[in-house]
Amino acid sequence: MSTRSPLSTPMQIEQWDCFEVALCGPDEGNPFLDVSLEAVFSHGPRTVTVRGFYDGAGVYRLRFMPDEPGSWHYITRCNRAEMNGQAGSFIALPAGPGNHGPVSVAETFHFRYADGTPFLPIGTTCYAWTHQGEALEEMTLRTLSHAPFNKVRMCVFPKHYVYNENEPPCYPFLRQEGHPGWDFTRFNPAFFRHLEQRILDLQRLGIEADLILFHPYDRWGFAHMDAKSDERYLRYVVARLAAYRNVWWSLANEWDFMKKEPAAWDRLFQIVQEVDPCGHLRSIHNGGQLYDHAKPWVTHASIQHFSADMLPIVEMRTRYRKPVVIDECSYEGNIPQSWGCLTPQEMVRLCWEGTVRGGYVGHGETYLHPQDILWWSKGGRLHGESAPRIAFLKQLLNEDPPGGLEPEPMHNPDEQFCLNYFLGARKTQSGTISYWMYTGVRQPGELSFQLPPDRYFTADIIDTWNMQIVTLPEAVTGHCTLTMPGRPYMAVRLRQSPLS
Amino acid sequence: MSTRSPLSTPMQIEQWDCFEVALCGPDEGNPFLDVSLEAVFSHGPRTVTVRGFYDGAGVYRLRFMPDEPGSWHYITRCNRAEMNGQAGSFIALPAGPGNHGPVSVAETFHFRYADGTPFLPIGTTCYAWTHQGEALEEMTLRTLSHAPFNKVRMCVFPKHYVYNENEPPCYPFLRQEGHPGWDFTRFNPAFFRHLEQRILDLQRLGIEADLILFHPYDRWGFAHMDAKSDERYLRYVVARLAAYRNVWWSLANEWDFMKKEPAAWDRLFQIVQEVDPCGHLRSIHNGGQLYDHAKPWVTHASIQHFSADMLPIVEMRTRYRKPVVIDECSYEGNIPQSWGCLTPQEMVRLCWEGTVRGGYVGHGETYLHPQDILWWSKGGRLHGESAPRIAFLKQLLNEDPPGGLEPEPMHNPDEQFCLNYFLGARKTQSGTISYWMYTGVRQPGELSFQLPPDRYFTADIIDTWNMQIVTLPEAVTGHCTLTMPGRPYMAVRLRQSPLS
Repeated sequence: MSTRSPLSTPMQIEQWDCFEVALCGPDEGNPFLDVSLEAVFSHGPRTVTVRGFYDGAGVYRLRFMPDEPGSWHYITRCNRAEMNGQAGSFIALPAGPGNHGPVSVAETFHFRYADGTPFLPIGTTCYAWTHQGEALEEMTLRTLSHAPFNKVRMCVFPKHYVYNENEPPCYPFLRQEGHPGWDFTRFNPAFFRHLEQRILDLQRLGIEADLILFHPYDRWGFAHMDAKSDERYLRYVVARLAAYRNVWWSLANEWDFMKKEPAAWDRLFQIVQEVDPCGHLRSIHNGGQLYDHAKPWVTHASIQHFSADMLPIVEMRTRYRKPVVIDECSYEGNIPQSWGCLTPQEMVRLCWEGTVRGGYVGHGETYLHPQDILWWSKGGRLHGESAPRIAFLKQLLNEDPPGGLEPEPMHNPDEQFCLNYFLGARKTQSGTISYWMYTGVRQPGELSFQLPPDRYFTADIIDTWNMQIVTLPEAVTGHCTLTMPGRPYMAVRLRQSPLS
Repeated sequence: MSTRSPLSTPMQIEQWDCFEVALCGPDEGNPFLDVSLEAVFSHGPRTVTVRGFYDGAGVYRLRFMPDEPGSWHYITRCNRAEMNGQAGSFIALPAGPGNHGPVSVAETFHFRYADGTPFLPIGTTCYAWTHQGEALEEMTLRTLSHAPFNKVRMCVFPKHYVYNENEPPCYPFLRQEGHPGWDFTRFNPAFFRHLEQRILDLQRLGIEADLILFHPYDRWGFAHMDAKSDERYLRYVVARLAAYRNVWWSLANEWDFMKKEPAAWDRLFQIVQEVDPCGHLRSIHNGGQLYDHAKPWVTHASIQHFSADMLPIVEMRTRYRKPVVIDECSYEGNIPQSWGCLTPQEMVRLCWEGTVRGGYVGHGETYLHPQDILWWSKGGRLHGESAPRIAFLKQLLNEDPPGGLEPEPMHNPDEQFCLNYFLGARKTQSGTISYWMYTGVRQPGELSFQLPPDRYFTADIIDTWNMQIVTLPEAVTGHCTLTMPGRPYMAVRLRQSPLS
């Protein structure tokens, strides 16, 4: 991020980095309401309008993420003369290493970065990690730096819930003068600067911030603002954060447990879609009742799915024609709540089954802790056994070339009817390059396949729990039978061989 | 079973045993078609009409199961003078030990014997065990004598399928004279005498014979008879077998994989219902598509459910208002077919989850065998690890007093929304006498309950896999928290204590 006063000489940033303009203006009255500031950024014939925001102490800012390299110019528009008509320019250089741009949907059911690199979500959830204070937040970042996760679900607002009784260090709004309550017309810039720092910390680690804008677990009133305050809050958040390339908008966690009418969510979606110049991904996460993810402002389905059976992923893909991300399928842990005490084996099994069915399954961890530091909400350290196995799955998905799977019907001549293993395929424009079969809690002593004619495949027998791969020395073709170890949690990957 | 010539002095049998009348008649022509024989059995003002059948070599038989003790009389009706108007009588004594009568539906979702004893189906499947010859069939019976199962799914017809390539020793029909094919108008009495012997062998072991009347896995033509032959076959089978108290009628295994029209099944059901004077249980088992078990001739839902999630049991109970028996949810084993390679842990988990959700789940076993002797079809020996755990479950269900469970919503104050463990309750007319919680693949370190006010419960912490029960020394009440071992496959049983 580069902060510029408008009179400096043109500077250089990377494409998809954040260019920032700081302006001085009034600090009397209520600048959040009184001052309207925007800028038009232009690159050749293209223009992009960006809203500014008040950052306290008389400072206003505009943030912009250039999506093309080259020379960009801007000019401000403001209802205060001193900030109106300010112009400047900068050079966007091609992205450097590790900067792939923002993520968007690709090939209907998958994701990729703006530079074309596939993005395979390997998500985790740390709802309130940015509300825990410096020491614990830094520990969370250290943990993430060694973990496989490339997406974190996290709330803007602090969280009130079981294991979440602590006050946050900082609040998103200022208190009303002379009253005990919040002034929902005055944002707390320090709160948002802290949040931005954490989003950039994640960006540095290559992690997408799946930012939850509303959630029901609240004792401060942030879950029960009126419609105007909700809208003002959304516009402010988008103005501040949309120029960070690793931001995803999650309208809500468990939208159906909140008191808003279903139509209110449509409107909030539309506001975000309208004011975000970068078109970041937009989703909404259910409690019990699914939102209609077919609606046009939803970019992908973000699903809580509380069942051992991941088959509904296939149905949801068909229904929504969008990526299906099972962001919550219960968590590894040992708390009494039934959503937080999966065995690590089951957490990994759900990730594998969901992957092979063409979805993306998120991790979470909830082990009892003497200070109530549960990863799922506060971050800290990982105590479980699933994360290394998820890293192993990630490594496999990122091989030759990286990509998610499509669910496949089973081609097994001994299978007289459609009782399938979990079977997926990696497809490219040139066709299917690999088949993936996952056994889950099944323990076959052998497996048979009917492979496409005249093609040869390299067979990997994969122990997904013990993280071992045995590659068969000879390529297989036609109707082949593989000897399996008779253990559960095995996978077979058949990769098209150069012999083909 | 007692065979009587009509002129003997009245004899005595137990209520619900089989009384048989043998008559001599013509053996020329086609006695199966030409001779119509029935008898009216009477007991005081009650009469029951029973059809006879031709048993070969000029012998005709009538079989009758008295459902009340006391003096019974009969008189035959026949289109052959020598068998018409034959009369006789017998005394039905009260049932002796181990004779509980036939099973019927009780309390909407459960079963009981005619003497009022609850029957909790602990089923297994040995489709073709009666087609394997003496040595293996006797081994199967020895295995069953030590196994927990009290119901066996078994086919009348032999089976042609993977691992089932052997010819049966005997066929249900006679060959056409001078033609290679079967004469579907002439039954093979030796075949049926053998089947009857096996049904009686099961009866002696206290096992219900869930007799599958049609199935698709056939190379002899028995799956493709015309409607008239189907009906003739059903009438013959019912005439021969309905007097055996441990018979259940399963119209088909995987009815939807057969070539009959859906309406044909309705008609076959109605024939069985009409000609069976004993009203044995009637069901039909699906492949992929559920039959409408709400139809009036279906006594209980017999379900193939190929999912790790047993929640649909609760929906099916609501939809059908009948007992839900998950007769097939895949089998413990290691064959390549995905329906036959569950880990024993998963087989037991499915039985527990289904039980706690208010259903009854059946066992099956399919371990690869050098002679293709897989329990699921041929019987023989059990090789797996689930049967002893199913015996443990059966033992628990048969305690104080025996009975199946009702699915319960979760009463957990820390559970802020409806994400349930699997929770069931044992109810009697005087109310709930115990709560059962099952964790499955969850591993809570503690569990909290909100128990009904002013009642005390004895808490059992049950390790369903290791078959251990720890009973807490003090009764629990109100909001109680139990320390759990943090392992999966645990159950908690809370039994109303005498303190209440």
